[in-house]
Amino acid sequence: MGANAIVGQSGGPTAVINASLAGVFSVCRASGAKTVYGMCHGVQGLLKEELVNLSEKLASPLALELLRRTPATYLGSCRYKLPDYRQNPEPYETLFSVLKKYDIGYFFYIGGNDSMDTILKLSDYAAATSSDVRFIGVPKTIDNDLMLTDHTPGYGSAAKYIGVTVKELVRDSTIYDLKSITVVEIMGRNAGWLAAAAALAEGEDCEGPAMICLPETPFDTERFVEQAARLQSKTPSLVIAVSEGVRTADGCYVAELGDSLSTDPFGHKNLTGTARYLCGLLGERLHTKTRAVELSTLQRCAAHIASQTDVQEAYQAGGAAAKAAFEGCTGMMVGLTRLSDDPYLCVTELHDIHHVANFEKMVPQDYFDADNGRMKPAFLDYALPLIQSEVTQTMVRGLPQHLRLT
Amino acid sequence: MGANAIVGQSGGPTAVINASLAGVFSVCRASGAKTVYGMCHGVQGLLKEELVNLSEKLASPLALELLRRTPATYLGSCRYKLPDYRQNPEPYETLFSVLKKYDIGYFFYIGGNDSMDTILKLSDYAAATSSDVRFIGVPKTIDNDLMLTDHTPGYGSAAKYIGVTVKELVRDSTIYDLKSITVVEIMGRNAGWLAAAAALAEGEDCEGPAMICLPETPFDTERFVEQAARLQSKTPSLVIAVSEGVRTADGCYVAELGDSLSTDPFGHKNLTGTARYLCGLLGERLHTKTRAVELSTLQRCAAHIASQTDVQEAYQAGGAAAKAAFEGCTGMMVGLTRLSDDPYLCVTELHDIHHVANFEKMVPQDYFDADNGRMKPAFLDYALPLIQSEVTQTMVRGLPQHLRLT
Repeated sequence: MGANAIVGQSGGPTAVINASLAGVFSVCRASGAKTVYGMCHGVQGLLKEELVNLSEKLASPLALELLRRTPATYLGSCRYKLPDYRQNPEPYETLFSVLKKYDIGYFFYIGGNDSMDTILKLSDYAAATSSDVRFIGVPKTIDNDLMLTDHTPGYGSAAKYIGVTVKELVRDSTIYDLKSITVVEIMGRNAGWLAAAAALAEGEDCEGPAMICLPETPFDTERFVEQAARLQSKTPSLVIAVSEGVRTADGCYVAELGDSLSTDPFGHKNLTGTARYLCGLLGERLHTKTRAVELSTLQRCAAHIASQTDVQEAYQAGGAAAKAAFEGCTGMMVGLTRLSDDPYLCVTELHDIHHVANFEKMVPQDYFDADNGRMKPAFLDYALPLIQSEVTQTMVRGLPQHLRLT
Repeated sequence: MGANAIVGQSGGPTAVINASLAGVFSVCRASGAKTVYGMCHGVQGLLKEELVNLSEKLASPLALELLRRTPATYLGSCRYKLPDYRQNPEPYETLFSVLKKYDIGYFFYIGGNDSMDTILKLSDYAAATSSDVRFIGVPKTIDNDLMLTDHTPGYGSAAKYIGVTVKELVRDSTIYDLKSITVVEIMGRNAGWLAAAAALAEGEDCEGPAMICLPETPFDTERFVEQAARLQSKTPSLVIAVSEGVRTADGCYVAELGDSLSTDPFGHKNLTGTARYLCGLLGERLHTKTRAVELSTLQRCAAHIASQTDVQEAYQAGGAAAKAAFEGCTGMMVGLTRLSDDPYLCVTELHDIHHVANFEKMVPQDYFDADNGRMKPAFLDYALPLIQSEVTQTMVRGLPQHLRLT
């Protein structure tokens, strides 16, 4: 059994993925790992033997505190999909030889659906080759679309940023005595959890978004224009929140209705442009001033307004993964199980990785009133606990201090 | 002499214009104003006699504290330009009859260049017609382009937001082991103060933006591509900050080089699209992944990360305006005069409104190294004090609480 541990980060950034890294690191160290290594750029870097010694880099308590407050991935990230080992064992052989060379007994991967697929494949290969390396996945994604976990670390902070920002945009966009529609474009290719968070802006001091469009419900252009016209007849200045992934009944992305779309290096269509297209449409049909606001990558890296609940849970999920591995588990993902909404109580649990990987969790119908473009109270009960409390930032020269791998 | 005071807000929102409103209100009340009124939607609302009684609305200390933390304009705003009273006295006659009806002796207007023009014209008209109403302007603009004041309330908070956000974007955009350029589009039609603030992101924990483009320096497409290529040959992942107002030597906006531009109801060209155009250009010429991020209106309403220095100065500027009016001044604007960078010391002073209105202050050459697209140390000495300290937010259900006029 290897004496050392290794941890990697994969997929898109969040505000709290480094808090999970801090959790894995701290509990590995406390559990007796000789050295904790980090993979640079996930499995892609590990294949090239690009490792850093985290036991040295994170030796000081200040470094660990800064790590918990640093957005994006301290170790770098990748989007690498392992092949089926029965068809192509080569990358597996390379990876396991690196693990052997560094005497690794514990392997942690923090990421979303694709990363959990990596844990699944590596632990299956380990079982097939009688390797005793233990593999545990730590969930992370702002998209909140992983199965078997009540929510994913990263979602709460993105949701808090979206709630805060949409609330500020509502104040900003309603100051003139004239007709205007602001369309806020929010991430979410298939699942509408992030756009749904725009509803958090509503309260006694804020009218909130007038309408929310999620990808779970087919987008009907005519109905959208009619609803906007009806809403604007009551309130001249409106804010509308839309998922970047909204698409028509025949599966065509709204973003595609305008310009032709570019494709990113991973083959995903670049969906920005949804708000711009809808603003053009509304301007033409309703003769209203419009403004398209894209929250873009800001929503996934806004550590300065991270949810303390989220940071703490991300840390706990990382720590629970390390604890499980040192207790003998492998081929598992840590999940968050909610015991109660109010008071909010949540614990970590372990799930067989085969039940997690490659499934997407959508916003359920009892959370969304699609006819009126409104989130239902059940969604607020679900989401509100996740955005509670703030992280005290370590401010230096007026800005939050981060930890950077050098 | 009228016993009451009135205050209005005009132009684009900032995170701290309501702190100036709180300052005007508090000092008017303390100075013995019988009632303090607010104009709804500035002079445009005043012409229609749309007033609110602020003495009632802001009676509680909690309301005043929330007002100081609420972005955008509590009273609503307008973009209304008074005509020359010698050519068209009609709106003046209407306004002064409303002022008389409400027994107004003190008139305050919080805004940017256009609003100071309003103070100039109203005080000139008052002098010409022997009215004893006193008119004082309170500066406000994120653009920082007003003359005679060291900086404008609103700039510090926008600059802090831009510094924080660019720092987070740098972390976010450098996680993959591949070539990528993120172009961040920042407000600023003629003056580059806001894009310059991207330089605040740089520090021991952040590489900061690799290049900054300001409207003060003519934009050369070929040089831009060459510089980006040179920078990318050293660092594969770059962040570049550009003002929306950058234009070529012949005065053509970069945003115009792509699509044709729409025009807003005030005749200003809608400049968004600069970053998108530049991303297309860089992608084609350098075969790099790109991403355009527009900070859009988020940068002017992000009260959640407001600079406490800015909030305090905005409050002081409002209070100093009220103090001056009750001491007998009229036809003046409150300015901020810096006594020292470090320790930062700044006081309010009064300036004749005729010396202020209708001039724009640009980023000086000794702040900007245009050849390398870098801000010089003198700019950092200037800007850093303005972004210091944070405002303790009043968080309710996970979001900052605002005060809304109902």
